[in-house]
Parts: sequence; C-alpha cells; structure tokens
Amino acid sequence: MTMLMMDGNEAAARIAHKCNEVIAIYPITPASSMGELADIWSADGEKNIYGSVPEVIEMQSEAGAAGAIHGALQSGSMSTTFTASQGLLLMIPNMYKIAGELTPTVFHVAARTVATHALSIFGDHSDVMAVRGTGFAILAASSVQEAHDFALISQAASLASRIPFVHFFDGFRTSHEINEVDIIDDDIIRQMISKAEVSAHKKRALNPEHPVLRGSSQNPDTFFQQREASNIYYDQAASKVAAAMERFGVLTGRHYQPFEYIGHPQAEEVVILMGSGIGPVEETITELSQQGHKVGAIKVRLFRPFATDYLLKALPQSVQRIAVLDRTKEPGADGEPLFKDIITALASHADSERWPAPMPQVCGGRYGISSKEFTPAMVAGIFDMLASKQLKHGFTVGIDDDVTHTSLGWDNSFVPASVAQQFKAVFYGLGSDGTVSANRNSIKIIGEQTNNHAQGYFVYDSKKTGAVTVSHLRFGDQPIASTYLIGKHQADFVACHQEIFLQRYAMLDMTKPGAIFLLNSSLPAKQVWDSLPQASQQTMIDNGIQLWHINADAVAVETGMGKRINTIMQSAFFAISNVLPKHQAIAYMKQAAEQTYSKKGAEVVAKNHHAIDMAVENVQQIFYPEKITSNAEMRPAVATQAPEFVQ
Amino acid sequence: MTMLMMDGNEAAARIAHKCNEVIAIYPITPASSMGELADIWSADGEKNIYGSVPEVIEMQSEAGAAGAIHGALQSGSMSTTFTASQGLLLMIPNMYKIAGELTPTVFHVAARTVATHALSIFGDHSDVMAVRGTGFAILAASSVQEAHDFALISQAASLASRIPFVHFFDGFRTSHEINEVDIIDDDIIRQMISKAEVSAHKKRALNPEHPVLRGSSQNPDTFFQQREASNIYYDQAASKVAAAMERFGVLTGRHYQPFEYIGHPQAEEVVILMGSGIGPVEETITELSQQGHKVGAIKVRLFRPFATDYLLKALPQSVQRIAVLDRTKEPGADGEPLFKDIITALASHADSERWPAPMPQVCGGRYGISSKEFTPAMVAGIFDMLASKQLKHGFTVGIDDDVTHTSLGWDNSFVPASVAQQFKAVFYGLGSDGTVSANRNSIKIIGEQTNNHAQGYFVYDSKKTGAVTVSHLRFGDQPIASTYLIGKHQADFVACHQEIFLQRYAMLDMTKPGAIFLLNSSLPAKQVWDSLPQASQQTMIDNGIQLWHINADAVAVETGMGKRINTIMQSAFFAISNVLPKHQAIAYMKQAAEQTYSKKGAEVVAKNHHAIDMAVENVQQIFYPEKITSNAEMRPAVATQAPEFVQ
Repeated sequence: MTMLMMDGNEAAARIAHKCNEVIAIYPITPASSMGELADIWSADGEKNIYGSVPEVIEMQSEAGAAGAIHGALQSGSMSTTFTASQGLLLMIPNMYKIAGELTPTVFHVAARTVATHALSIFGDHSDVMAVRGTGFAILAASSVQEAHDFALISQAASLASRIPFVHFFDGFRTSHEINEVDIIDDDIIRQMISKAEVSAHKKRALNPEHPVLRGSSQNPDTFFQQREASNIYYDQAASKVAAAMERFGVLTGRHYQPFEYIGHPQAEEVVILMGSGIGPVEETITELSQQGHKVGAIKVRLFRPFATDYLLKALPQSVQRIAVLDRTKEPGADGEPLFKDIITALASHADSERWPAPMPQVCGGRYGISSKEFTPAMVAGIFDMLASKQLKHGFTVGIDDDVTHTSLGWDNSFVPASVAQQFKAVFYGLGSDGTVSANRNSIKIIGEQTNNHAQGYFVYDSKKTGAVTVSHLRFGDQPIASTYLIGKHQADFVACHQEIFLQRYAMLDMTKPGAIFLLNSSLPAKQVWDSLPQASQQTMIDNGIQLWHINADAVAVETGMGKRINTIMQSAFFAISNVLPKHQAIAYMKQAAEQTYSKKGAEVVAKNHHAIDMAVENVQQIFYPEKITSNAEMRPAVATQAPEFVQ
Repeated sequence: MTMLMMDGNEAAARIAHKCNEVIAIYPITPASSMGELADIWSADGEKNIYGSVPEVIEMQSEAGAAGAIHGALQSGSMSTTFTASQGLLLMIPNMYKIAGELTPTVFHVAARTVATHALSIFGDHSDVMAVRGTGFAILAASSVQEAHDFALISQAASLASRIPFVHFFDGFRTSHEINEVDIIDDDIIRQMISKAEVSAHKKRALNPEHPVLRGSSQNPDTFFQQREASNIYYDQAASKVAAAMERFGVLTGRHYQPFEYIGHPQAEEVVILMGSGIGPVEETITELSQQGHKVGAIKVRLFRPFATDYLLKALPQSVQRIAVLDRTKEPGADGEPLFKDIITALASHADSERWPAPMPQVCGGRYGISSKEFTPAMVAGIFDMLASKQLKHGFTVGIDDDVTHTSLGWDNSFVPASVAQQFKAVFYGLGSDGTVSANRNSIKIIGEQTNNHAQGYFVYDSKKTGAVTVSHLRFGDQPIASTYLIGKHQADFVACHQEIFLQRYAMLDMTKPGAIFLLNSSLPAKQVWDSLPQASQQTMIDNGIQLWHINADAVAVETGMGKRINTIMQSAFFAISNVLPKHQAIAYMKQAAEQTYSKKGAEVVAKNHHAIDMAVENVQQIFYPEKITSNAEMRPAVATQAPEFVQ
C-alpha cells in the first residue's frame, strides 16, 4: 500500500495515463492539470500498462480534442481526454457519435459551472448535466480517493459494456483538494483492465483489410431499429459497472455500489446526491444518527445509465420524505435532473413488488452552484425542513434568496463532533510567498509520514500572483471528508504571513476560542499588540486567542534564505501548533529539506536546516493586556473615494 | 384572410423575417430553406415590420451563427437564426449565455435527428432535447399553420418574458409538408410585437454612453445568488406565453394554450405528445371517441418552461392510464424527457388540492425516431396497450424490435373515417421530370382557389436528381392533419410518370380497391397491359383498379413542350381523377399557366394551354382482361450478382 497526498486531478490522471495510448487535450480550468500531468509523464517516458508511452496531443479546442479521440477510438486506440464546462459542451456532437457507435472510452471531467449570466471557473454539475443525453455513462467520484478509484472502475466498465463514460468529480473541490490516496498498483490496474476486452476493442477498429460499414447515413427505413438495437448494451451496463466495482473491492478492499446507502437502517428522512457534497452529508448523518434521528443518505455513484434496480435495493423502505440535491440549475424545468430521476423511479415502482412500500414525499433542491459552500450546517438545515413535514420543492441552500424565497435557513453553530475534533489551520499568504508550497509540504509530512490524516485546500484570489492565497488545512486521526472551507470561529490555528493583511482581512474571525494566531511582522515583539486593528484586539481578548509572533523576513535574511519565508513560517507552525510532537515535526521537515535539496549540495541543505532551527528559536508568544490599545480600523472593502458605480 | 399553400419552413421564416433585423445563418438540412428564403427576401429588399431590410449573414458554422446572434442581441438588435441537429448542438455554449443574460430571441428549429450510430437528415426531437437545459423556452408547433403562428407567438412571448425561445417543428415533416396557411397580416404582427418591449430590449444594449456590467466572471461569493435571481422571469414565462396566445387568438381566431386537451371529457386513457405526431393522434381520438372509447390526448405546446399548472388544468381528473410519447431516445435514462416531466408533475401533485384525483399509471414510449412513420393505426395500438391495463414502459411503436422486444403491435387496417374520406394520390416521378412542381401546382390550385383543403409531401431519394421522387397528395373538404405518408392500399389515385419504374416499385400496392392507376408509357395503348409485371396485373384484377394510359412524352414533343411532361401529367390527373370538376380544374390550370408564363409572351402561354388540352384528349382508360397475360417479374431490390457484403 502506497499512501500519497495529491489532488483529484492527479489521482484521476494517473489512472488515465496508465490505461490509454492516445490522449487528446485542450486546457480548461479546473481540468487543465490532468492534461499537463499526462503531458509531463509522457515527455518523461512514463509508460502505460501496455508498455508504450501514451501520445499526448494538444488540439486547437475541445471540439478538436473530441474529434481526435473519436478518430483514435475508431482506429482501435485506447484513448481519453480531460475537460470541463464549455470544453465539455464543445465535445457534445462527437459524444453522441462515440456513444452511438458503442465505443469504450472515459472522459475525465473536473465538473465546472457552464457560463450563463456570467462565466465562472468554479464547480458544479451543470456541464455534466448538459451531456446526460449523449448516451455516455456518468460515474461520479466524491473524493480524491474515488477520483483515483473511479477512473479505473469506469475504464474497466467501459471496456466491458462498450458504453463510453464520463468520469467526473467536483471542479475546484475534488480536483484541487489535497487528500490521501491509496495508490493503485500497476498489477491491480492490469487485473482490472481485461486484455480480451482491449483486444476486442482493437478488433473493432476500422480497417481496410476487413471492412465493415459504420458511421454511415441512414434513412427512416432503418435508423430507429438500429438505434434501439443498442438497448441491450445499456440494459447490461449497470451490472457491468457493479461487477467492476466488486472486482475492484476484492483487489483493493475499497467497496463501491452504483447507489450506496448510509445512515439509520429505518430512516424516515433521506437525502440523495452525488459528488463532493457527500462529505458533509456523511458527517451530518453520523452526527444526527448518534442523536437518535432516523436519517440517511443515498450516495449516487452511477448517474447514467440510471439503474433503478440498484437504487430501490439501496433505499430503505421506511423512508417517508426525501430531498434530492442537485448541484445544477435547469431553469424552465420543473426540477433538476437527479430529482426527476428519483421521483420517476419511485412513482413508477412504489407499492409494487420491486419496492413494496408507500410512495414517499420527494422534493428537490439546489446547492453548491459555482462552488458555493455546502456544509454540515446546511445539510442539517435540509433535514430540519424534511422533519417539519412541510416539504419545500425547488429549495436552495447555501444562499439567502430574498427575491424568490427559495432558500432554506441553517444554523452555522451546527458542527458535527467528528469535524470539531479535527485540527484546523488557516494560513493567509501572498500568491508568490511560498505559503502554499510550505503547506503542501506540511500535508505531505503528516499524511504520508504519520498515521494521521490530512487535507489541504487553497483558495486563490482570481488575480493570482501577488494577491492573497488562503490555505485551509485539516489534520486528524480519522480520514477527512470535509469538502468545504474552514468556517468562521472554527480554526485552531490562523497564520498571517504578510502583515499588510492585518487591515484587510478579518483573519481573527476564523479563530475558535483559545486558538493560536501566528503573525509574521517586522515590528519588534513589544509593538505588535498595539499594531493590531481594534476589532482584532477585541476578538483576541474575547476568545482568549494565543498571539504568537515571528519576524520571518528578518530570520530569512539572517539565515541566507533571502526573501523566502515559507520554510520559516512552516517551522514556526510546527513549533507552536502541537499538531505533531515538535521534535518529530522538525525532524520530518529537515528530512524533507534533505530530500529536496541534496542535489544542490550539503550547503543548501544545511542552510535550510539552520532556517528551520532559527524559526523555532525566534517564534514567541506575546502576552497582551486584557484591553483595547489600538485606534486602527479595518480597511473598508471598497475604498470610500471609489466612483459610485463601484460602490 | 389570405390562405396560401406553403411548407413549414416558409411559414416560420416569413414571420422571422418580418420580426428581425439581423439574421445569422448557416445551412443545415432540413432547416436550410428558412435561411435561403430570408436571404432571398432581404436581397429583394423586403422589409421587416420596423421598416428596415433585415441583414442576413452567413457564418462559417452554426457556432459562428450563434455567436453572431449573441453579439447582435447584446447590441440591441432583434436577431434570429435557423438550424437543426448538429447545428443546434454547436449553438449550445452561446445558448446558455443568451438565456443566462435574459435576452429575447427566437431560434427556429426544423427538429432533426442527432447523429449517433449513423447520421440521419430526417426528423425527431433529439436535437431539441439536447438543449432543454440551456434555459431557452421551447415551443412546439405541430402543423404548418402552427409553424407560422408559433413563430410569432414565441417572438412576442420572448420579448415579454426576456426568455429566449427555441421554436421548433418536425424536420422533414412539418418543415417540408405543403399545407394551407392563413397568412398573418403585418398589422397583426405589429399588434403582437410590443413596441415598448422592443424598445426595452434596445435600451438594454451594451453601450459606452451608459455602461453596465454584464457577461463578467463571477466567483462563488455571488454566482449562485445571481443565477437564482432569474427565477422570477422563468416563473412568469408560461403565463406570458399564455397571454401572447390569448392575444393572438383575439386577433386571428386561432386559439392555443400551453397544454391543450382533446378527447372525451371523462377520458380514462390519455396520450401526451408534441409536434407533428399530434395529427394522427387527433384523427385517432376522433375515431375512437365516436366508437365510445373514453380516450383523449394532451397536446404539448410549451415544453419549456414546463408549466405544471397549465398541464394539471388541462388533464381530465378521470384519467387512469397515460402514455407519454417522446420522439427521441435518451439511452441510459430511465425514460425520455417528456415522460419524466409528466410523471414528475403527477407524482408531485396527484391527490393534492392542485389536482384532487388519484395518481394515474404513467408509461413512456418512443415513436417516429428519424422520421419513422407514425400513423393512426399505431396510435390505436398505443390505446390498445393502455386499455389492456398492462402498461409497457419504455415501449416503441412503428418498428418491430425483435432484439429487446420493446415494440407494440398495431393493425394497419385501422383507418379513421376522416382519413378514409380524403382523396389520396401518389405520384412516382423522376427527381428531374417536374413531377414535384406539377404537384405543387395542383395543391396550390385546390388549396388556394377552391374551398377544399390540400396537403402535399414529397419523398426524395437521397440520391436526388435522377432518382425516384414520390409525391403524396391529399385533398378533402376538411383540413388535413395526416402527418404521415399515404400507406399501402390507401391511395385513390396512383400515377407512374416513368415507365422504368414498373419493374422497380410495387406502385400497385399503394392502390385501394377501385383506384385509378395512370401510366405514362411510350407503348401503344394496346400493348400496355401486357407490359405490366405479373404481380401488378394480379393486383389490378383483384382490386378492380382502373388502368389509364397516356404517352406523355409523345404529347410533349407534339405540343412543343420538349421533354417536359409535368404539365401534361398534371392535366391528365385533373382530367380523370375527379378531385375537382374536370372543366373547372382545366380552367384553373390554364389560368396558372397564364400567370406563370405571361411574361414570356402569348406564344408560350398558348403552347402550355395546348399541351393541357392535348393531355385531356390523349389520356384513355385501358380495359384489361380478367387474367394474367404477362411473364415479367419485378426486379429484386438487390441485384442477384451483387457482392456478398451488399446482399
């Protein structure tokens, strides 16, 4: 077992690169890094499981990438692509063809908002929903590990069923969340990918030596019949996915089903969803179940072909009220796609042999559009609505809809015990100051070197370099499924890596009582307290925040690190946070520096080791008075002299 | 009131050209002629209702056309486009934007099959279904008149609601069916198109003089909220459509509703569908109702926004079993889109205040994929299935599915009385011999000059010029809603314009007992009977077919018409068919020739008049013996010496 920390894009791309021969790409946020990684690996000569180096071709658009894949598949190549949002939309015409011709392939999608009133690079399922009619199967991963696992399961199931797959995971959540991945060995990949099925795919290639008629034009006399002739492949697809999942479970110990139920065995209230939102739902259900609530959830893995049998098998017959959660908005429809799937399945089969229980009430709602936060508190809000027995169809959660009043309320103070127990740290850095690299390093140390679990997510300002980057890190003794940002009043540790942020961001609002606030400041320790804005002082006093100080820039200069403060701030974090025993953490940091810099010579390694030690030596707690001493105010969000339009 | 005979493309394009300033086009079958007509009209200087000549621009693809429209709309122009199938798919990214920005426009779509296992230029709703998630409203015309009417209603409703519309009608049925259209006067168009709303659209144009922020990039902080802010527009859209329909009804006497019910007021079995399939459904329901069956149908006009309130208002609460008919296939879904809309609406509202009746059984089925025939006999087959109380979900009708056994049976001998009463004529001509022009002429004469009703549909071989073209003409004293070909044993009149067809096509199979068979043959009348294939002789004897003969080629040469036999065959048709009193028909023909050729001089007119008279003189009935005299066989469909692959 090799446990590595990586994001969902890398987790999926690793499998895709192993299983394919032709990879046609065109970069689109947030899927770009899948293509970039595949390109790097092929440039480095890394081979797929068939012993060849995949050819990675960048086309002039996603339409070209889809066309190239279509052609490569028709010539018998194992082929894939990576995309999102408008990129996926441009692939639609080719997707109908690829599916119509029953061609196995997997498109890996970091699901992203489709541009409507505005463009958004962030995540929801609107792109995936736009292709649900193409005839592609759709498999939804909800975590970084699943992005890895489902990349392989979809590839295996596609070969077995001849149905092409969209394998998707949430863009700018799973795609960019660093979490632990139990890496699948090449041996297991080889056992999952049937040689006979690959060979059958290659035998179906168009070839002048044994011509077949394909991709022709048909008239009303034959088209309909031949279209229906694909039924048998679709009818069998779900069981082929289930079979691939079962084989995968035997090989890896990780067991999946097309639909999975979690929660109380006699649940009366159930939510149904797919994607990364399953994380907070699972945390909430664990909490509510422990409080005695009869609640549960269905995790949708296989969205298309929609396998009603598997759904009915998974859903407890005790259910009375269901909320189906769609991460998309389809204006003009009387409910979003997953909602309609569920109500169709139940209206068709409730009170029948296949599901001998009464029809539950079913409502649908929207959440997480364009990466809007989706937290356990919101999930609890949904269960409150269900428990009230006043179902609100077409609800939204996560916003305050003061126009059409669709939104549910929620109570942010709801924090499941499992979440409260995590160690949560938030770091405010500049896009260019190395804060993210240092935090990736910390996550790697904890996730890969210890028995603890770790998760990291980095919120970049859209202006990128030179603007604020906020790192959200979680550590704990349990796997971390919290697929949302660390909220206000929840952080155990907040670090400000740039003193100019003091007036700009209400960083202290992130702290929970007794938390640590680490400030990098060029002021002498004595002047630090007085330099804080009034509001920050008040919060610290009220919540008993520990204030720690380091002049990281000075330490960097002194230790020959120049302007790079990242190692120093990381060292300070480990020195004071107690997330690991201090000496152990420092030892891991030094070991990592050795690995990174040994090629550059012993001197560079020694310089880094020295910087690590000096940070530990220089970080100090500031004991402040129990009263406000500052007149400084926070800077307003919009400058008072800005023109009226901006105001 | 101006009643003209035209096809659905022209009917829609006339309104589109009147209502728009910028028309961006790219030709795609079967929508091309909408763009071609608009181009011709603008080239001829025809003005829109605003007094300007619409600018028609051909782009390099439908993606470009959609982009051009998007830009034109943002600059405040009234803009439209025409497309189908893959053309519509290429517009999807722009459609999300246009709808997201709440921009009024109408895309006129001659709905066509999306290419899957094979390309098809024929019709079904798979292209329209592929854009149902874009936020466009979708209005479905089911006849040529409705393609005219709904083009205007959608334009009015789009301006009123700010929701862009897809106005569609069935490609290669409504798009190419010649039927009568009560032309809407410019005055009525002006009354339907609110000046204030056009002006409001223009005021929303991007303009540096009064800048607004639009089409920006939004992040998770605001995107979801702003997306939901469009709800109010969608919530009101259906009532704005209904209001436009009501205003239209007052102005024209033609009354529509978002959903319309026809049939028994206490119907127990109901079918629900949209598009040209409504024709045979209506014919069947009239027939079955007269037989005392409690059956009915819902005509879906407004598919998106899906207006549940209007559906529930229209659907009788007596209904026990429903079949929802989708003209599309969505492999991997648990039912096609319209089916899921209906079951969602009923499962959500049955047994409630809004629809206080028990939940009916609902099944879904597919028909008419890629212009597969859909006839009253098939509709009766669906009602038989419903009446059996053994609902078969996911059925097909119109094919024999011997693989997955989805298909329903039907009895072709079921012909509604209203259909049996029509005069039905089938003409076999060459693509280049003028048969189609002559038939268009006949339809114009009957439809525009008399109180009778007429319909024409022309089936071209995909090889076009030089291959067979079959004209299907219907005449009657009632409007003709038969949106399917004339079937076997149903024609009152069959004409063979080229004697080489005798061995190739089983033309006599089209005749009903006592029908007329008109043969253009270069043989002397005495030899004609013996020249017929055995099977044809047998059919004629068995069914008492009247055999008529003319040597049209000889008459054409004699009367100076050269190789053009169309006028002669048309004249012969009118002379012997009794579809109109002979002298009246001949007078209309001569009048038409005068109108057409008067510019070319009196001599040409006289030549045509002479040809008309000579045809009447030369066409003669052949009285044949009551026994087979021929050894000739029909030619096999595939030559016996063809290679194995072709066989």
